[in-house]
Amino acid sequence: MKFIDLRSDTVTEQPLFMKEAMFNAEVGDDVYGDDPTVIKLEALAAKIVGKEAALFVPSGAFGNQLALFTHCNRGSEVIIADSNHIIAHEVGASSVIAGVQLRAIDSINGVLKAKDIEKRIRFENEDIHFPSTSLICVENAHSSGNVLNLDEMKEIYDTAKKYNLPVHLDGARVFNAATYLNVDVKDISNYCDSIMFCLSKGLCAPVGSILAGNKDFIAKARKKRKLMGGGLRQAGFLAAAGIVALEEMSKRLNEDHDNAKLLAEELNKLPEIDVDLNNLKINMVFFKFNDNSINTKALVNYFLENNIKINDVENGLMRFVTHYWISKDDVFKVVNTLKEFLSKR
Amino acid sequence: MKFIDLRSDTVTEQPLFMKEAMFNAEVGDDVYGDDPTVIKLEALAAKIVGKEAALFVPSGAFGNQLALFTHCNRGSEVIIADSNHIIAHEVGASSVIAGVQLRAIDSINGVLKAKDIEKRIRFENEDIHFPSTSLICVENAHSSGNVLNLDEMKEIYDTAKKYNLPVHLDGARVFNAATYLNVDVKDISNYCDSIMFCLSKGLCAPVGSILAGNKDFIAKARKKRKLMGGGLRQAGFLAAAGIVALEEMSKRLNEDHDNAKLLAEELNKLPEIDVDLNNLKINMVFFKFNDNSINTKALVNYFLENNIKINDVENGLMRFVTHYWISKDDVFKVVNTLKEFLSKR
Amino acid sequence: MKFIDLRSDTVTEQPLFMKEAMFNAEVGDDVYGDDPTVIKLEALAAKIVGKEAALFVPSGAFGNQLALFTHCNRGSEVIIADSNHIIAHEVGASSVIAGVQLRAIDSINGVLKAKDIEKRIRFENEDIHFPSTSLICVENAHSSGNVLNLDEMKEIYDTAKKYNLPVHLDGARVFNAATYLNVDVKDISNYCDSIMFCLSKGLCAPVGSILAGNKDFIAKARKKRKLMGGGLRQAGFLAAAGIVALEEMSKRLNEDHDNAKLLAEELNKLPEIDVDLNNLKINMVFFKFNDNSINTKALVNYFLENNIKINDVENGLMRFVTHYWISKDDVFKVVNTLKEFLSKR
Amino acid sequence: MKFIDLRSDTVTEQPLFMKEAMFNAEVGDDVYGDDPTVIKLEALAAKIVGKEAALFVPSGAFGNQLALFTHCNRGSEVIIADSNHIIAHEVGASSVIAGVQLRAIDSINGVLKAKDIEKRIRFENEDIHFPSTSLICVENAHSSGNVLNLDEMKEIYDTAKKYNLPVHLDGARVFNAATYLNVDVKDISNYCDSIMFCLSKGLCAPVGSILAGNKDFIAKARKKRKLMGGGLRQAGFLAAAGIVALEEMSKRLNEDHDNAKLLAEELNKLPEIDVDLNNLKINMVFFKFNDNSINTKALVNYFLENNIKINDVENGLMRFVTHYWISKDDVFKVVNTLKEFLSKR
Repeated sequence: MKFIDLRSDTVTEQPLFMKEAMFNAEVGDDVYGDDPTVIKLEALAAKIVGKEAALFVPSGAFGNQLALFTHCNRGSEVIIADSNHIIAHEVGASSVIAGVQLRAIDSINGVLKAKDIEKRIRFENEDIHFPSTSLICVENAHSSGNVLNLDEMKEIYDTAKKYNLPVHLDGARVFNAATYLNVDVKDISNYCDSIMFCLSKGLCAPVGSILAGNKDFIAKARKKRKLMGGGLRQAGFLAAAGIVALEEMSKRLNEDHDNAKLLAEELNKLPEIDVDLNNLKINMVFFKFNDNSINTKALVNYFLENNIKINDVENGLMRFVTHYWISKDDVFKVVNTLKEFLSKR
Repeated sequence: MKFIDLRSDTVTEQPLFMKEAMFNAEVGDDVYGDDPTVIKLEALAAKIVGKEAALFVPSGAFGNQLALFTHCNRGSEVIIADSNHIIAHEVGASSVIAGVQLRAIDSINGVLKAKDIEKRIRFENEDIHFPSTSLICVENAHSSGNVLNLDEMKEIYDTAKKYNLPVHLDGARVFNAATYLNVDVKDISNYCDSIMFCLSKGLCAPVGSILAGNKDFIAKARKKRKLMGGGLRQAGFLAAAGIVALEEMSKRLNEDHDNAKLLAEELNKLPEIDVDLNNLKINMVFFKFNDNSINTKALVNYFLENNIKINDVENGLMRFVTHYWISKDDVFKVVNTLKEFLSKR
Repeated sequence: MKFIDLRSDTVTEQPLFMKEAMFNAEVGDDVYGDDPTVIKLEALAAKIVGKEAALFVPSGAFGNQLALFTHCNRGSEVIIADSNHIIAHEVGASSVIAGVQLRAIDSINGVLKAKDIEKRIRFENEDIHFPSTSLICVENAHSSGNVLNLDEMKEIYDTAKKYNLPVHLDGARVFNAATYLNVDVKDISNYCDSIMFCLSKGLCAPVGSILAGNKDFIAKARKKRKLMGGGLRQAGFLAAAGIVALEEMSKRLNEDHDNAKLLAEELNKLPEIDVDLNNLKINMVFFKFNDNSINTKALVNYFLENNIKINDVENGLMRFVTHYWISKDDVFKVVNTLKEFLSKR
Repeated sequence: MKFIDLRSDTVTEQPLFMKEAMFNAEVGDDVYGDDPTVIKLEALAAKIVGKEAALFVPSGAFGNQLALFTHCNRGSEVIIADSNHIIAHEVGASSVIAGVQLRAIDSINGVLKAKDIEKRIRFENEDIHFPSTSLICVENAHSSGNVLNLDEMKEIYDTAKKYNLPVHLDGARVFNAATYLNVDVKDISNYCDSIMFCLSKGLCAPVGSILAGNKDFIAKARKKRKLMGGGLRQAGFLAAAGIVALEEMSKRLNEDHDNAKLLAEELNKLPEIDVDLNNLKINMVFFKFNDNSINTKALVNYFLENNIKINDVENGLMRFVTHYWISKDDVFKVVNTLKEFLSKR
């Protein structure tokens, strides 16, 4: 049974040509540094984001937490938007693995202003009561659907550099950001010292993310990846998918964005729905029902009966996500199914 | 050489009658539970703040961090104003000892609103990406000089209780808060599950703070105090000072507040100075120079030559603190010395 | 170029039939619980080791550390043989992730005696100076090549149960242990509350291990796996290999053991070599050169030139490991190459 | 009511001349570095143990854990005898505060041999599976009553230096060790990089210990002391007692040792008792009852009725501790009371 699955782009299954690349991958024991496909992926990934080196990690959360663990001494402070994935969706891991104190800035769409950052920067030799700021984190594309433009990235980066601090970019969907901004990914990652991005999600690899940075950083991260249990053996199968993800899938994200826009337009035509047009930049459509009587749980079930999977409302918003397996026809089927549901109430 | 020391109320030396109480204290090994004066202090302290039990701890930061360590599982989240002492002045300890993720709310004067708290409350069984909120922290009097009134305390407490969460009160200067509000300390501590308050600072004890809460909480905290290296032996000398602090010194804080008001009024008469009258509630006077050319470092030195100790500007503000050893005459001497400095520029 | 790779059984590449199973796997987003192949593997794995539930994890170290993190409160104590993998080869992770105090018992081959365990068991309510023992760890087969027999397992387990403590089994090579003992794996895992075992290594899966235990334990572990960054998406490819590993590869380990014995016998015929016959139980042959003048680094290079990969001496011992890709012919080639090397000195 | 208290030397109350020194102490806010008596104590303490600098800390456990926290990166390894106070009696703090992995060596009396240490030393750049050894800990006098002689100290120190590792000495009772060895404390502390010793215990100060080391180490420790909540205000009262402890009380420990020997001899005359004469070196007498029918709980009560406080048996041993408040007459009273108890059975 084929479903139209709008819950996330993490649900993307693998196209046949990606599976064939996996099947044909040359592999080895990557803990010994023997897996040629992993080595190839890491080199390719580093080149694409313009960093000296890169490391394959099992997941995006793994890569983000590994970045904190590698950049930051325990007990130091990390400045970050309160809505970022590292705070919001990584189970509080920053207080367990890296052991850092998050200095959250209230920001719904992930934009950080220089003055809000600067207010929080401090160094332990200034005052016996102070820890040191060790890192500034930014997320782009942001999980709100927002994309920070290059000026916004630059403002954060320049502020960090003024105080000689590193910037980590949670770029889980950085290829979506680059697609929206119509720039090279490197133009974005230019404004960070380390970047994590996912090979899964919109890029359709089954498992894995990349952490990239300078050579010394990645050497340290490789050791700490082992500590965190992320040293894999014949990871080349996953890396082969990652190579296809980078070389081919990253080029087609505009299709997903177009479908998201189409979906947004169609949804916005419905009187019961307000689409958040400010955050309609990548493959995500956020909307509200302007009628409180609509039972979203019933909607989820109704869609499921019609072979469409969606998540229930979160923080007052519905989110539909487009990806490789969502066609223009699927968009119309979704909209029509929603109309049916609304008409039957 | 006697100095007028306005840097903080932590500098307060001990009056003779307090030292005599220390000298005459009956002591014992408190790790064995054998120190009668510590036992007496803990019982007195618990009664004053209306809690079942209390524990003597070496410092305010120790007491706050012990509260986090006792209330919170590692990896859980603590909701707190970004300006609170626990974030701002405890060296990032929450990420080391308790190992919690702070969810800071931007709030310069320590007031937390129900909606800002509720937005951040979450529970790990809701979503695989979520940690659980384990504690809400409040500080009163706040280090900005602000005092939260009983309604503000109640709003926070009621919000916590709606979600069955505990509230910890950093009441380092809760006796100043009670004095300002003209209520019993218990009326404030009624709105928390645990409270830390200092016997030093305005209350003039040399060393020590109290952590109070219910019996089970304090029993756990006693064990964790040992882990943190806070099990002391003949602590009765310090406890004897603490008893005097609670029984006598807590009654006279209005004198310090009156002197702070006098100092504020006199300073505000000077054209170069803007006193922050909104945060003139306890024994602290915050002010700005409205003339950027004033060299505050030179002022610190000029004062020192005149036997007055002050701290340099922090975050754009000068802070003068009154206490037991600052008389009305001292206030006028300070103002006159400042006038001299300004006239000589 | 095909190598004879004796460095470890972790280097095992995947047989074609395992790759075909991977290629044909039905997958889904396992973070959503949607991957049918992962679900099938977890059910199969739980059944094989006789536990209520099982969890797929990215590596053996991940599974062991997750077990500590799930069983143990931070600051509690874990009793363990000093030579076990958790201490020796997991980068000190127990002090970072679980945050426990290891109570190591000196034991070269991983056997723990009841009296040595009991001496270290303690509970925090006994004495204010004590942490609580929270777990006893055992490793079988042990990395020394030793296999604990069922009586040895029972002695440890019974001691733990006497004090109501859980036992975690690091069973990275538990199928080798079962093969050697000629028992069902369940007969071994019967003496533990949780078990980690590897699908890679001798079982030839590319990536992944299993953590199994009771339902409540695995539910908690699933949450903490997310925190540690081990929530994977379309993990079904790896799980499909794992199913083949369990269903087919686990049955053929006696071949590897026989080849190890053959290799040991042939090596032991050489006058320069002493094989450790006490630890010749699974697929590992440990031996010493009884002639100090032998340059093992040169040996490693000589073997490499002859398409044989080996590790250099560690703690005075050479280790050769047999596995799926080492045939009887390979054994003779290795021995002959060694003879050549020795004769040419 | 005066008791003869043999439970520990931690129970020592303060002689009048020590209390007078406290009463007359000049104090200040030590967090500001303003307490002249603390400054004096720290300088004196550093000089006595031959280190560049020293720091006053609230307790011995605080000082030991602060030493680990300052010497060691989180996740590194500390080599230590399994019987040392840091493992045995500090509530598992090393896994919470410093976050290190203890590598315990089984040793009942605290003696470490070079070969046992060397076997455990390792460095993270050697192998991707290894953490780094960061510290070797030694305890002298050991809590078993044993004293390590200078050769034993030197063997440990030389082993550490061979690998460029620091040594921390838990010298809670180092003055007892020096008294027994008839050497200067410096002769012992010469074989360590940092030392913690207690001003309480046999030296009779009410509260406090010293951590000493080189300037850089102590500067870092001062910062971390604040993080741990050990920044005290008018600590000069405690420091004044500490100065008396160092200048006067440290000279009289031979009296306690003589009384312990006398007590041991008298106890050993009793047929029911076997004194451990191998560990009769300082102010502690360890003995066993060679008759299992003796009810030690009843003994504790019987003694209490006779105004003698003792602890119950621990690990099969009774421990009686002599100190400033135990006279020769008290020794005979204790022995006679024990005879009475035994005769009445």
